[in-house]
Parts: sequence; structure tokens; C-alpha cells
Amino acid sequence: MLKAAIVGATGIVGQQFVVALDKHPWIKITTLAASERSAGRTYKEALTDPKTGAFRWYCDEPPSPEVMDIPVQIANDMDVSKVDIVFSAVESDQAQILEPKFAATKAVISTASAFRYEKDVPILIPGINSEHAALLKKQGKERGWKGFITPIPNCTTTGLAITLKPIYDKFGIKMVLMTSMQALSGAGRSPGVIGLDILDNVIPYIVSEEEKVQRETQKILGAFDRGAIEPAQFAVSCTCTRVNVREGHTESVFVATEKKCEPEEVARAMSEYKGFKGVSLPSAPKQMIVVRTDPFRPQPRLDRDTDNGMATVVGRIRKDTALQNGVKYLLVSHNTKMGAARGAVLVAELLIKKGYIA
Amino acid sequence: MLKAAIVGATGIVGQQFVVALDKHPWIKITTLAASERSAGRTYKEALTDPKTGAFRWYCDEPPSPEVMDIPVQIANDMDVSKVDIVFSAVESDQAQILEPKFAATKAVISTASAFRYEKDVPILIPGINSEHAALLKKQGKERGWKGFITPIPNCTTTGLAITLKPIYDKFGIKMVLMTSMQALSGAGRSPGVIGLDILDNVIPYIVSEEEKVQRETQKILGAFDRGAIEPAQFAVSCTCTRVNVREGHTESVFVATEKKCEPEEVARAMSEYKGFKGVSLPSAPKQMIVVRTDPFRPQPRLDRDTDNGMATVVGRIRKDTALQNGVKYLLVSHNTKMGAARGAVLVAELLIKKGYIA
Amino acid sequence: MLKAAIVGATGIVGQQFVVALDKHPWIKITTLAASERSAGRTYKEALTDPKTGAFRWYCDEPPSPEVMDIPVQIANDMDVSKVDIVFSAVESDQAQILEPKFAATKAVISTASAFRYEKDVPILIPGINSEHAALLKKQGKERGWKGFITPIPNCTTTGLAITLKPIYDKFGIKMVLMTSMQALSGAGRSPGVIGLDILDNVIPYIVSEEEKVQRETQKILGAFDRGAIEPAQFAVSCTCTRVNVREGHTESVFVATEKKCEPEEVARAMSEYKGFKGVSLPSAPKQMIVVRTDPFRPQPRLDRDTDNGMATVVGRIRKDTALQNGVKYLLVSHNTKMGAARGAVLVAELLIKKGYIA
Amino acid sequence: MLKAAIVGATGIVGQQFVVALDKHPWIKITTLAASERSAGRTYKEALTDPKTGAFRWYCDEPPSPEVMDIPVQIANDMDVSKVDIVFSAVESDQAQILEPKFAATKAVISTASAFRYEKDVPILIPGINSEHAALLKKQGKERGWKGFITPIPNCTTTGLAITLKPIYDKFGIKMVLMTSMQALSGAGRSPGVIGLDILDNVIPYIVSEEEKVQRETQKILGAFDRGAIEPAQFAVSCTCTRVNVREGHTESVFVATEKKCEPEEVARAMSEYKGFKGVSLPSAPKQMIVVRTDPFRPQPRLDRDTDNGMATVVGRIRKDTALQNGVKYLLVSHNTKMGAARGAVLVAELLIKKGYIA
Repeated sequence: MLKAAIVGATGIVGQQFVVALDKHPWIKITTLAASERSAGRTYKEALTDPKTGAFRWYCDEPPSPEVMDIPVQIANDMDVSKVDIVFSAVESDQAQILEPKFAATKAVISTASAFRYEKDVPILIPGINSEHAALLKKQGKERGWKGFITPIPNCTTTGLAITLKPIYDKFGIKMVLMTSMQALSGAGRSPGVIGLDILDNVIPYIVSEEEKVQRETQKILGAFDRGAIEPAQFAVSCTCTRVNVREGHTESVFVATEKKCEPEEVARAMSEYKGFKGVSLPSAPKQMIVVRTDPFRPQPRLDRDTDNGMATVVGRIRKDTALQNGVKYLLVSHNTKMGAARGAVLVAELLIKKGYIA
Repeated sequence: MLKAAIVGATGIVGQQFVVALDKHPWIKITTLAASERSAGRTYKEALTDPKTGAFRWYCDEPPSPEVMDIPVQIANDMDVSKVDIVFSAVESDQAQILEPKFAATKAVISTASAFRYEKDVPILIPGINSEHAALLKKQGKERGWKGFITPIPNCTTTGLAITLKPIYDKFGIKMVLMTSMQALSGAGRSPGVIGLDILDNVIPYIVSEEEKVQRETQKILGAFDRGAIEPAQFAVSCTCTRVNVREGHTESVFVATEKKCEPEEVARAMSEYKGFKGVSLPSAPKQMIVVRTDPFRPQPRLDRDTDNGMATVVGRIRKDTALQNGVKYLLVSHNTKMGAARGAVLVAELLIKKGYIA
Repeated sequence: MLKAAIVGATGIVGQQFVVALDKHPWIKITTLAASERSAGRTYKEALTDPKTGAFRWYCDEPPSPEVMDIPVQIANDMDVSKVDIVFSAVESDQAQILEPKFAATKAVISTASAFRYEKDVPILIPGINSEHAALLKKQGKERGWKGFITPIPNCTTTGLAITLKPIYDKFGIKMVLMTSMQALSGAGRSPGVIGLDILDNVIPYIVSEEEKVQRETQKILGAFDRGAIEPAQFAVSCTCTRVNVREGHTESVFVATEKKCEPEEVARAMSEYKGFKGVSLPSAPKQMIVVRTDPFRPQPRLDRDTDNGMATVVGRIRKDTALQNGVKYLLVSHNTKMGAARGAVLVAELLIKKGYIA
Repeated sequence: MLKAAIVGATGIVGQQFVVALDKHPWIKITTLAASERSAGRTYKEALTDPKTGAFRWYCDEPPSPEVMDIPVQIANDMDVSKVDIVFSAVESDQAQILEPKFAATKAVISTASAFRYEKDVPILIPGINSEHAALLKKQGKERGWKGFITPIPNCTTTGLAITLKPIYDKFGIKMVLMTSMQALSGAGRSPGVIGLDILDNVIPYIVSEEEKVQRETQKILGAFDRGAIEPAQFAVSCTCTRVNVREGHTESVFVATEKKCEPEEVARAMSEYKGFKGVSLPSAPKQMIVVRTDPFRPQPRLDRDTDNGMATVVGRIRKDTALQNGVKYLLVSHNTKMGAARGAVLVAELLIKKGYIA
């Protein structure tokens, strides 16, 4: 069993890591770290409100009893000498400082955006761009680290990049226009989105989100060639909004393709897409993309948990009526499962399997 | 004062007509009609549940006391001899049968889609395609009617067509891709969208909606030439979804323009758009399009009631990053005010002013 | 394996029966019946919308593949000769007609209220008033039936009666005042509660609900003596409201007790309550009542699924500040699991174990 | 015109004061104060997010243009020499420090709870306990202040105390048991209730709320006798919950009365209740209590704005089936209008009319 640390363990993403690693066959949580406020307390104590006694646990699945008594360390001083992997669930500004410290000696898998856009840093989605992992070797060498930093994409990028991949492979892509209807959980809890603002409403703007999705999609679908990622050349344009849904991002996608393509061909390419080519990872979905024919699907509440929240569910694949060669569809992707902690655990599994973490 | 009948008066759209005509300076409700169930009862009685005593009134504004005692006629047998205008708020299949009967002698302004796609029927948005009204003369002549039928657009078309108009005029349009996030009220009440289905959810499909919006937008922005409407030639592609919002459709629009255009130019063209050219109509908004610079606007709850629900509110006008010459923005349009009864009353006002109804 | 029929199988409660009996160790679904509309079609076909292709399945859990091909019979003519149990999920007016027909030869367990208030009909909650089952023998004999009808309580009664039972046993009860905040699923789907009505709202009235809860609570907690149920003598007063929650009824309960009681004693009496006394039933919760000490619990979304939706979760047990001897608390009970199909299956299990069904 | 200062002007309650005083016939806002963060900026600047340009205004009604240019002072150093009234909208801990400073020379009307439970401080609801205002003279004298502090009740107390008053006067009250379903706006915005927590949920606990309502109700309905308030002797027991509603608290009330009372008598006593006895105040509702006979009312969304949010709306008045002499009903009260800023302005109006402020 490999030993893992979670930094930012008391926050909502940290908690999702605790759940994602519960009963994991290869990885065991041995270290937890958070801000100074939690220092000197067990994980259970750190999560309990001292005034009201409320237990501040935000996942649907309960935490495993074994982690409850782990003493919480201060993130700044976390001792990583005894762990094999660090899962980082801190905000981007902290990640900027903390992650290089840990990467000096260990593999760091992060949900933060701090390093996503660096030249020597891949943004991995196992099964989509697994070959980009090779960049990690270069990264370590150039930065003088024994370990590395590998961030996962923004949660809104994940489902988009996954569903574009089989289209890109088969038909080529000229242009992507996407409008997202994102879940509340994507905004976290401090402060998150308050009920007063989202009840009976749509919020048409999510700070920095659109730029991230546009850039990350091109990088993820880019070619890995002579030690570098060449971003895909097609243009991506997004409008990202927030709707009153707890979990599960819905995205309305319009794609102009290079070659002519029929909706049925796209549906088949998606359904048959095999990202893992025989590599078997514990958290991987049976099918990366599940295509539904019921026109009223996908719906976030009904489809987000497909295959444990790890599959991307697509529906309403139609010929586009405006783009020359084009297709349009909707997708639902679980933003706090495949799009966050579980997705990062899947990256760890890939890197273990490929020998990057040992 | 002109006298008006409302057909389908007990339904939610019919009720909105009652509100839209309350204290109207030119039009007075004198006749109400509904299904046989309501026959022989006053409007008040017809709206009162006999079992529970509940008053089935669905508008925020209360009904005016004067209409409460009007006896409700059976729609099929409604006597239109004493009215000048018929506002039709029935479903499309009934409209197919009833509206021609009334149009034989009177002006019929309808929220139903039954006649929208007929060659000799304009879909009017005053201030956008007022000149299409001229087609009504031809319609009456060819069909042997003294009156005419003039439907308003689908509520999702309205905001789209209005905001595209100044872009089309100034920069030309090649292509429009739109994703809507539509309010519950658009689905009506029988059965409407049940709470169980929309809570914590998005519904990605609205039957027939996308086809309507695509076709109507081209027709509304079409040129009126030698007695016929030539639909606009640009392509329109839509994905229409339902979100958990009571009133106000939000639309995310991507537009490829013929000429280069900067977001500021588009904002100015929209803000300065003067549809009415000196024609003053009681229900017309002060500005057809209100452009907001706060990036978190428009929001349906905050913006839908702008100028009594008659203005279309636009925000986040940005250069599109994928289309060659392009712009993207979001809009909020009040689907049951400008997009329904009040919009139909505005059409009536235009036709009165222009002498089509007298 | 016993064979079961479900009447009203295509409705939401019928579907819940399908889920509740999936992989059941003692009972197997062999017969499904619904209205004439579904006749001559398989269960799968009957649930598929012919126009849109949408699959009208309303449970979170998918239906088991085995039931999909069962041909749906017409409820009126359902052949019960080959089944051992009939689960009835029809509306009360149909239950009035259909259930006696089936009860002539078979055990009928019903979610309908039609027979709940008959003298010779028990309203069973296994573990609370299991001894009332004895009345079923008398019922069959007097009515000349080989089978019997045994309805479960209204879903709002269930949690109330369960939590009152240990208080009644230990401290006696003088009076109960309860305000419910009920979930949307309690209203079903046709028409159910529409989103427009419940968004940003509370509906303060549910037709007939309060009378049912008051009467059923007294009957369930009544003594079974010389072949009859003597309703409990304490008064029950309810106000039942609907809130914007999908599943899980929340109830705020004030109880005046005969004897003095401290909140800790009540908490202990509830936690330690053993309804089943060694009888082991597959669907029974491990603990009938789960008491939480976190003052922010129970919450319907967080607690409704406790022990598969079969436990009643209680919190905020406090001394009442107005009643002489009194206690107040909140409870959450899953209205469509313990309060509906699963609760009825639990009744079946009890009756099988006790030999009433064989 | 009297001059008013608002302390805590940039917060949500402060904004509500700005709206409540807009175009007020007797009072004019001349001074605004907030935390140091806002110092040196105009009100408009202080409300504008410097990063995103978003305008942080939370009321449905826009702010009046005149206040936009008022420079915001620091609350701690606010100069009250030129104002006649201070409206305090700060949190309780700040109120503890700031309000006595202002009260040394001026009338302070507060929405904070800091001083509510002091012996020499009345909790005024004009029309319900106007005579308690006499205590303010004593307060000033004993504390050596030229001004005074007079807090309004907790927003949940307001509707309860108002509706109990006519019952108390006519029938006497033995006991009150109340369950509230409170709106999100009652929790404010920092942090308020986040969407993730309240979507599809009820939160069964609001810290300190129940104690406040119990104590304040007794004080407000207490007798003013020989210079002191003798709290009413009847017991009050509450359970306070939060539901997914924006504005408008709903309360389910059970009242045991001293004398027998029929629901019709209670309805009449409420409808006919005249609190103001000929005193005419600009913000007072036409009727303090509006009784509805439709059993589906009151609903927060439909009834909260009755008479500008200043009336308390009551429905479902029924005989209680458990209490000996008793009645039960539901009420809706607008928590951020009558229950907050507008309610405080109404207090100011009463004190101006009675000569306490000049």
C-alpha cells in the first residue's frame, strides 16, 4: 500500500479526497494537513464546531472511522518524508507556495490551478491524454525535484475535453462553442454561493472560469511531441453560468468538425471510446462516455452519479443547423467526483501503474 | 375605448392578459371565454375551486375587480360581434379551429403557434419588424376575412430576435448559436413542470422549442418585400433547456457577424436601438434593450422586471474567441410579459396606432 | 419464494414497489397490473413514452431487468390465482373497488387510505403495533374472505407514531401537537406539486392530511384488546405543510407527557427502542429510531436515507418550555421508503414471519 | 424634515433602511456609516466591488440616487451632532459598543438584539405595545442620556406577537407553541445560508432564535405598570427552522386560550384589530392583520408583500383538536420589511408623533 497525505484536508475538496480514498486497494491515507486553526487536533475534532457541536462534514458518504483519529498537521510544516503521494486540495495562492515544497521530494497531485499553465506541467485526464504523463520526468529534471506537480483540470473542462476527444480523433475539430450550467458545489463553501442569490435565479458569470476551460481544453487535447505539449489548434469559446443544482455540471456544446459527421457516427465514436487500452485502474469508469438516447437526458440529478460519478453522460447528439459540418449535444459531468478528488485519485492510479509513483 | 375579448381567459396566459389590460388607456375587456367547464359562471366563480375554496389566480398582480363579474362564455360559441379585438390565449390545437372563426370578422392577436409559419401571417415584434404588419391586409384579402390573425413569437424567440436586430442592421449576421435556460412559467401549469423534476436539476429538452426559435428568428428578421416576407438568410442553431427559475428566460448567444465588430460597438448599437421611431405606445419599454456592464448581470430574478418586464436586458458582451468576426452575450427576457400577454397587447397597440384595428 | 403482484405498477408508488422488492430474499414479483392504457405491453413498453422515447422511471434506483419483460395486465381483471401477495399502489377510489376483489382470496397490502379507518382493519407498523396483525384473522372471517386487506399508514403518520411509541410506553402521553414540513414526493406526480407553486414558497395546506395523521396515530398506538383496537386516548393536533424538498418529511413535535421526563431519558428511550424483539426481517432498520445530538440535525437531505430510508431520525430533543411535563423534538422520516413501498414490504415480511401469508 | 443617520449602511439591513426611507415624508437620510473598509468612499463606491465592478445591492428596489454620493463615515467615529435619529443596522456585538455612544445624545432605533432584554428598554411594535414607549424617558434619565436606545424585536417575534395580541386581549392566553419556517434573508449574507446547504432541505436549528422569540413575545405583550414592563405570564415554546424561501417567515401557531373561543371569533378579532387608534403613521399597514379564508393561504411568496410587507397575513384559523380551549393558525410576516428596517422606521414614526423625537 502506498501512503498518501491530503493537504487542505478539512475543506470540502479535502473531505472528498478522504471519501475517494476510502477502502482504496492501492493507497492509504496516513497524513492530513490543514490551516493552523486545526493544528493539534484530530481530524474528527477539527471538523467539529466547538460552539454548537455540529459536525462539519459535507460529503454524502460518511468519513471512514480510521481517519478520524489522525492528528491534523499544519500545512506549511507538513512532514512528507513518510508518504508516497501528496494530494493537494488547497486554494491556488497557497498551492503556489506549498506544492513546490512537497514536489521537491514527492509526487503532488493537485486540484488547484496554480501550475496548470506552466509549459512543463501536464493536465492529465487518464484515458484522454495519458501520454502527457511523460512530461513529468522532464519537469522533475529541469526543476531539480525528485517529485513533480500534476494538476487535474478545472471541473468544467473535464467533461468537455473527454467528449471532444473521440470527435477530434475521428472527425477533426475546427471550433467549439460551449455554454455551461454549473453546480453550486463548484463554488465551494467559503463563501460559496448563498441561497439568497441562486434561488429562482441563474448567475451568468464565474470569475476566470471561461479562460481556464478554453486554455485547458486545447492543452489536454494537444499533441505530445518531442518532450512538449503542442496545444490543439481549434478555437474554444465558452460562456459559464451557475444554476441552482447541487452537483453535476451540464454543458451545451456546439462543435464544428473538419470532416462531415453524422450524429450517429458521433454517438458511436463516443460510446466506443476506449481510453484505457487494457490498463485497468480501480477508479476508472467502465465506459468513459455514456450516450443516452432519451431526449430528456442527460439531467444532472439523474445522471451525475453514473458509474460512481466517473462517467461523462451525453445526450441529444444532433446535427448542428448552423455550422457547416457540425454537431451539438449536452453533457453532464460530476464536478466533485470525476471533476475533482476522484479524478485526482484516478491520475494517481495511472501514475502508479505507469511507474511514476512507487 | 376599444373593446377586447380574451379567449382562454381562465388559464395562466389568459390571466396575464387580464393583468396586461388592467387600466389600459385604449383597450377595455368586455368579453371572456373559456372551456365549457366555466360556462355560466362569472370570472370570479370560474377561478374559485368549488371543493377547497382556493382562488386559482396565478399572477403576482391581483385581477381588477371589474372583470370579476363578467360572465364567462364558451370559447366555441363566443360572440365577437361587440368586440374590436380578440386576444387568444388558447393552446395551439384549439387555436387552429377557433382563431379563423374569430378572424372572419375581427382582429385576432394570439400567443399560440398555430398560424406562425403560414406565408401570409407575420410574427410581429413592435419596434423590430413593425413593417411586416402590412402583410395583414393581404392575409385578410386572400382568406376572405374582414379581420386577421397575428401571432406573437414563441417567448424564447422574442429576446433573441430583439437583441439580434441591431447587430444584423449594423454588422450583418452569418450565424447564431444559442443555448437557453428557460423559466418554469414557460411550460404553463397543466401539467407544467413538476417540482420533483426540476428541483436540483436542469431539463435539457423542451419539445419543439428549438425548431420554433430557429424558424421564427429568421422570419422576424426577414425583409418585407413586394408583399412577402423573405426570411433572413443566416443560420440559427439552438439548444433549449429548462432551469429552476420562475420567470425570465436567460439565453447565452454566440453570433458570427459579416463585418468586424467590437463589443463596445455592439453594446452601443443595442443601447441606442430605437425601434419605435417616434411612435409612442403605452406598453412599449423606454428602451427596447438595456445593456448592463456589471459582469454578474443579467440575472433572471434581478433583471426580468426591467421596465415592467418589457425591456430585454443584455450583459457580458464580449468578443467571441472562436468565431472569426463574432460576439457573445447573455440576455434575460421576461417570458410571460414581453414574451406573452403584454407583448401581444403591444402588438395591439401598434396595430391600433397604424390603423389596422379601429 | 413467495409470488407477488403489484397493482398500479406503472405509477410512482408502483415503481417504488419494484425497487423495494428487487433481489428480495423471500418475495418475487411475478405479476404487474395497471390501467387499460398499459394493457398488452411489457412493463418496459408501458413506461416508455411513445412520442418522445423518454423512459418514465422515477426512482433513483434503476428497475431490475427481470421485471422489464413482464406483460402488464389490466388492474380490473388481474389474475391473482398464481400469486401469494398483492401489493396495492392505486389511488384510494380505485382501492375501494379493487382491493376487496383481491382480498377475497389473497393477502392485500396497500398504500391507499381506503380501508384504514374500518374497525376490523389494522394499520400496521412492524415493531410498533405488530400485535394488531391478529385483527386480520377476524377481518377475513367476518367478511368471508380467504385473504385480507392491511393498509400502511399515511406517510406523515409513520415517523410520528414510531417516535411517540417509546415515549408513550415510558412516560404516557397527554397531548401531541405537530407541524409537518412535507416533501414533494408525498404529492405524487399527477399532477403533484408544480415547480411554479413551490419555488421560493411553503404551501400551508395538504387536503385531508391532518385528519388522517391525527386519527391514524391514535389507532396505531391503541391497545389491542379482546379482538379490537381501542385507539389511544391522547389528543393529536397537526398542521401539515409542504416545502421544497424532494424526499423526507420533517416534523416538529411537541408532546405533553403524563409523567415527568427529561430530554436525556426520552433520547435513551428512543435509541434503545427495540420493536422487533428478536424477529429478524430483511427490510427492518437496525434501529427503528436514530437519535442525533448535533443540533443542526435531522435534515431531510442528510438524514432521510439513514439505514436505507427505514430508520426515523430524531434530533433536538429538548424540554418543552410551555407544556407542564413535556418534550419537543424534530424528526425526519423517508416518506417514500419507510413511509410507502418499503414500509409495505416490511409489513409483508412480518406477516410472512408470523404465518399470516404462506 | 428630520435628519437620520444609518450605521451599518452598506450591509443588507442598512440597504433596507435606505429603501425604507426613500421619499419618506418626515425623515431624510443625511449620514451613512459603515466599517473602516468603506471610509473615504461615497456610498456608491463603497457598494461597488473594485475587482469585478459588480454593484453589491441586495434589495429589489433600487437605491435612491440622492444617497449614492453621501460619503461613508466610519461607524466608530460617526458624527451624530447633525442628525435627529440614528438607525442602527449593525451586528449585536458592535451595537453593544456603538449604540450607547449615540444614545448619549440622540434617539437610536436598532435592529440589533444587544439591548432588547434590559429592564429599561422596551421592544416596540407600534400598534401592539405603543404604550411601552413611556419607558424611554426613564431609560434616558437613569442612564444619563439625552437620547435612548429602542430595539425592534427579532423578525420571528414580530408576526407572532402581532397575531397573539387580539387573542390575548379577547380570550386570554395560557400557552403558545410555535414552529417557524424561516426565510433565507433572515440569516443575512455574511455568510448567510449557502445554497448547497438549503437546496432540497430544511435546517432544523437557528442559533439563539427560539429563546429570543419566547422572551420577546412575553415582554412585548407584557403590561406597562408603574414605570416597568411586567412580562405576560403565558408560556411560549418554539421550534425555529429554516426553509428554502427568500423572504417571508411562515409560522405554525397553536394557542391555548383562557376562555373558550371559536375560530370565527378569532378571525374577527384579528381582522378588526385596530392598533393605531386614530394615530396615522406613513409606514403603517392599513390593517395590521389580514385574515385569509382560502385554505391554501398564507404562502410566503404570495402574501409576504401584502400592504408593502407591513401587514401580517393569517390563514387556516381552526379549532385546535388537542388543547382544551385552543386555536391554531398559520401566519406569514415579511422578515425584512415589517420585521426589520421598515418596522424600525415605523417605530421612528410613532416616536416622532408622540414627541419622543423632535
